[in-house]
Amino acid sequence: MLRMDIPALERFLADNFPQAEALGFQMTALDEEHIALSLTTSAAHLRPGGTVSGPVMMTMADTAAYLIILAHLGPVALAVTTNLNIHFVRKPAPGPLHVTARLLKLGKRIAVAEVRLGGEQADALCAHATVTYSIPPQR
Amino acid sequence: MLRMDIPALERFLADNFPQAEALGFQMTALDEEHIALSLTTSAAHLRPGGTVSGPVMMTMADTAAYLIILAHLGPVALAVTTNLNIHFVRKPAPGPLHVTARLLKLGKRIAVAEVRLGGEQADALCAHATVTYSIPPQR
Amino acid sequence: MLRMDIPALERFLADNFPQAEALGFQMTALDEEHIALSLTTSAAHLRPGGTVSGPVMMTMADTAAYLIILAHLGPVALAVTTNLNIHFVRKPAPGPLHVTARLLKLGKRIAVAEVRLGGEQADALCAHATVTYSIPPQR
Amino acid sequence: MLRMDIPALERFLADNFPQAEALGFQMTALDEEHIALSLTTSAAHLRPGGTVSGPVMMTMADTAAYLIILAHLGPVALAVTTNLNIHFVRKPAPGPLHVTARLLKLGKRIAVAEVRLGGEQADALCAHATVTYSIPPQR
Repeated sequence: MLRMDIPALERFLADNFPQAEALGFQMTALDEEHIALSLTTSAAHLRPGGTVSGPVMMTMADTAAYLIILAHLGPVALAVTTNLNIHFVRKPAPGPLHVTARLLKLGKRIAVAEVRLGGEQADALCAHATVTYSIPPQR
Repeated sequence: MLRMDIPALERFLADNFPQAEALGFQMTALDEEHIALSLTTSAAHLRPGGTVSGPVMMTMADTAAYLIILAHLGPVALAVTTNLNIHFVRKPAPGPLHVTARLLKLGKRIAVAEVRLGGEQADALCAHATVTYSIPPQR
Repeated sequence: MLRMDIPALERFLADNFPQAEALGFQMTALDEEHIALSLTTSAAHLRPGGTVSGPVMMTMADTAAYLIILAHLGPVALAVTTNLNIHFVRKPAPGPLHVTARLLKLGKRIAVAEVRLGGEQADALCAHATVTYSIPPQR
Repeated sequence: MLRMDIPALERFLADNFPQAEALGFQMTALDEEHIALSLTTSAAHLRPGGTVSGPVMMTMADTAAYLIILAHLGPVALAVTTNLNIHFVRKPAPGPLHVTARLLKLGKRIAVAEVRLGGEQADALCAHATVTYSIPPQR
């Protein structure tokens, strides 16, 4: 059961994480298992050569994991990233970056999400991340 | 295009990695994208409490990644693990451990595989690993 | 303040983890910051070629992290590994494997240790791991 | 033997990575083993609450690893990040962020660096990263 939908997540980000919002991504799908984001790359995200920079991909991976956890826990949660592991496997092609996060575990204390980042083509995986969040004790 | 099938991989392991063979797993499926292994747990793999130990899961993750790379490269390759990252997300239930490795990247110098380890149920993920192998230069 | 010394850790391992004990390592030093283990390699640990196998190094990294945490928390704790990330950087030379674990964090819920594995020479780093343990709530 | 000193690295960054330069850090020390950077945090780096954001720490870890590798390889190299693993262990205190990268391995094909990020106090570790770069073949 999700506690937040895409509009609720958008409002939460706008109120609490203006820097995440400034990245300029859209949430394109959300269900209990996964969330999909799409980043229309702009000059600010790019390395010389026109591809999305590593730091932008890491930020997107962290953000996507955060949003799928938040959708489950609701807006009171103050989950914090404890670990992020990312493999860069292919240079992104120009064009939008598609990011999909899936929960591997949603426990009482730890949540782990898997994140795939890629281009338009299904086989165009650019990066794969696993992200761990610590979930604060319930009040 | 695969260069080795399951019987060829079995012979290669028996000849070169008797310790891997001693784990007692079966290869149950292989195609270009993935390999599936099944470990019938025995007393030697277990922690007190009857679940598969972490070291056995790490060994299985490394082995599954190695085998899918080997199936693509053929028996001359001497790929070596350079990185293994594993998240343990759920205590394994008693019974066989199913291990599936998929290639995230098969480059000339680096191969990266994702490995899922779990029980009989589709949602019973016990551990998730990413494993990086360095591929030696072609002779 | 440590709650267990080397003899207490040895007894705890012998009683609870006979498989860890079967690896045949010695604890050579322990203080609040670190623990040092030494593994006299035997045929059972070796790959063809005479070097310590990756699975043995992963097991040693996990064990060393566990022991430094256990020394701090005392024998009632049931900490479990949630993540292990290991980089293999150099083939081990023949001879004893020296393993040193240091705490990066000892929180109420999570502990993170860094582990270095290497040979006799100070610069002979063979592998570097970070290991995360989840610490159960106090009863 | 280093092929670039701090002024040479500064010129290289200014010419090739204006975004890295825009972070506003200083290189404060460099020798064969390590590089030290210091980031004077400004509003642009901060999360609500006044601490350095995770993405800024990931970017600093990646940058520090890149610079110690570049110092060894010289400006012709086009090393690319293949993996970054970061543990966030403590919320940064306000004030400058100190970042130290050390080489774990500098091979012909792969370089691995360990990065520590923290505040003024020696024991104030905020994050620990390992970063792998792929080194292109020599021309």
